Amino acid sequence: GTGDLMHLPVSRKLLPELTPENIYGYAPVLGQQVLREAWKTHLLQDNPSLCQKTFSLPIVTSGMTHGFSLLTELFLDSGDTLVFADQIWGNYRLIFQTKAGADIQTYPFFNTESGFNTHRFHQTLAESTDEKLLVLLNFPHNPTGYAVTHTEAQQIVDAIVARAETGCRILVMVDDAYAGLWYDATVIHESIFGLLLGCHPNVVPVKIDGATKEEYAWGLRVAFLTFGLDAAAMQPLEQKLSGLIRANTSGASQVSQTLILKAMQAPGYAAQKQRNYETLKARALKVKAVASDERYTRYWDVYPSHAGYFMCLRLKSGNAETVRQRLLAEHGIGIIALGETALRIAYSCLDASDIEKVFADIAGVIEKR
Amino acid sequence: GTGDLMHLPVSRKLLPELTPENIYGYAPVLGQQVLREAWKTHLLQDNPSLCQKTFSLPIVTSGMTHGFSLLTELFLDSGDTLVFADQIWGNYRLIFQTKAGADIQTYPFFNTESGFNTHRFHQTLAESTDEKLLVLLNFPHNPTGYAVTHTEAQQIVDAIVARAETGCRILVMVDDAYAGLWYDATVIHESIFGLLLGCHPNVVPVKIDGATKEEYAWGLRVAFLTFGLDAAAMQPLEQKLSGLIRANTSGASQVSQTLILKAMQAPGYAAQKQRNYETLKARALKVKAVASDERYTRYWDVYPSHAGYFMCLRLKSGNAETVRQRLLAEHGIGIIALGETALRIAYSCLDASDIEKVFADIAGVIEKR
Repeated sequence: GTGDLMHLPVSRKLLPELTPENIYGYAPVLGQQVLREAWKTHLLQDNPSLCQKTFSLPIVTSGMTHGFSLLTELFLDSGDTLVFADQIWGNYRLIFQTKAGADIQTYPFFNTESGFNTHRFHQTLAESTDEKLLVLLNFPHNPTGYAVTHTEAQQIVDAIVARAETGCRILVMVDDAYAGLWYDATVIHESIFGLLLGCHPNVVPVKIDGATKEEYAWGLRVAFLTFGLDAAAMQPLEQKLSGLIRANTSGASQVSQTLILKAMQAPGYAAQKQRNYETLKARALKVKAVASDERYTRYWDVYPSHAGYFMCLRLKSGNAETVRQRLLAEHGIGIIALGETALRIAYSCLDASDIEKVFADIAGVIEKR
Repeated sequence: GTGDLMHLPVSRKLLPELTPENIYGYAPVLGQQVLREAWKTHLLQDNPSLCQKTFSLPIVTSGMTHGFSLLTELFLDSGDTLVFADQIWGNYRLIFQTKAGADIQTYPFFNTESGFNTHRFHQTLAESTDEKLLVLLNFPHNPTGYAVTHTEAQQIVDAIVARAETGCRILVMVDDAYAGLWYDATVIHESIFGLLLGCHPNVVPVKIDGATKEEYAWGLRVAFLTFGLDAAAMQPLEQKLSGLIRANTSGASQVSQTLILKAMQAPGYAAQKQRNYETLKARALKVKAVASDERYTRYWDVYPSHAGYFMCLRLKSGNAETVRQRLLAEHGIGIIALGETALRIAYSCLDASDIEKVFADIAGVIEKR
């Protein structure tokens, strides 16, 4: 027989409980089979709408960015129209526009009642004349932390179906980076992916999610692609994806996949995830309360936020980038400036005890201007 | 201050000696700075020709395939000519031809004296009429385990310089997957990258190497790109690479990078690497002796082999794929068939005590035909 997998004990001793194969061996191109099955079970548990519906076994990618990148290679030809909101994760433009050459059509994320702008979303789809369309949805939303109500989610699905009825083939990319992190009873506590499944023959939803944020494992670079397609449609697609992955990364890190899987299988897993969720929820509620305090209303509005990792301020005066730089230089506080007027605060790395001070410092910087 | 990085203790306890940041935090897009510096030191130690020469800080990629893939995005336009040998790692065609659209020009790897075919290599370059050329070199060679002598290495550099003299700009990709695994005093024990550095202003060498094989860490997906360029040329290139990586993977696994770095910093590292080297060398020499035994000369020739992980047989009768399948079905032995007549045996996973039996079984399968 063949011996143990060759390796260097100096690094293996750092992972005393894992076998060399689980650390150093090649993972299958589409990911560890058991991890893919565990992720499917996780999706079914957390998304009631998936029950009895047809969707693929999740495919492992080297982080969510890799998932989006593979989708552009599979489905996006230069010049194709891609619809997303005006408020987005900055990397979307790099991945889809700069790199893949998509023609980006945006709609305003919020309506005048500070809800999701289903009217303008519908209109943007209806006004497109393409025979093929790509749509990118993201709730919990980066950067604002907005999540949709059940009514809004159904209106989004209806708008997509209405466009599909005209003969347009639509790929809907559902960016679920922050899935599970819902803090407000008024919004739906599952992915819109489930509502899109089977909504129309011309609509193919694909869920991009991951261990990245949802499992608190940013640097492990493990995410998943799950397609709303049956086995017959998935077979050639898996082959195509397999070829693409073999030509660009040859698969995701084995030890990273093992760490995710071992965590999911551990007895304490659910309780630990719940504890992190409670921590984030407490921060989210406190951030919202503090940022919305009336002493700050002359400085900013708070964008609606019920989910995810972030909240956003819309400054009433002052330049966001200037505020960001001075906050970093004078107070050592790092936040993100978005455009001229918006500031994004991540509570994933903000202790509850620091929240009061952070907003007081932001106000102080604006005041001093 | 901010608290500990959020994470799930159920997976963190598997790596008791590492900090959450070193496991779950985002790594820099181009890789951990300390790891990049450690790899540069490693290159300088193992490659005397690099001394006093100008080359970049290595950039971390998600495995060697990712390195090649990034090079195609940076430097290869569809239709560009790429020169490599007729005997190659199968994935080259997928990465460079199928995916990137290169016009592949091959030359016979061996000459009639079973040495590297410097004559045909020179001729292939000389006959090309392009103003821009890509060349891919790979010693120790996959699949044969061939490595070049100092004379052959110099002839290769001379052929490249001769073509560069005509005004052609040449990117030379040096695939050093198996660097360091030299078992024969007749071949050079360093990368040809060092000899190519500074050979001509029109020639840019880039070294693609990695932890993958050299550090016995296949599944970690950590490799390096090192350019034969000065700081002024690297600055825009690093920016371009940074954008490409942010658009396709957002960087390599942090825990994988940490495991490589911690291994390189550990007191037992050099001795453990040497031990694995000695194990592979012993297998390589025994494989060569057994495969070359005169009782097998009617079945196959052994391709020259002095390095790396592999050796190759050229069958005198019988189909390689048929032999492979029967060997697997009847003896549980897995080897790779290459074309009609070649079989590749990997001694990275072949105990010395099994070597006699493996070749007897191969001969038995051919005999029974």
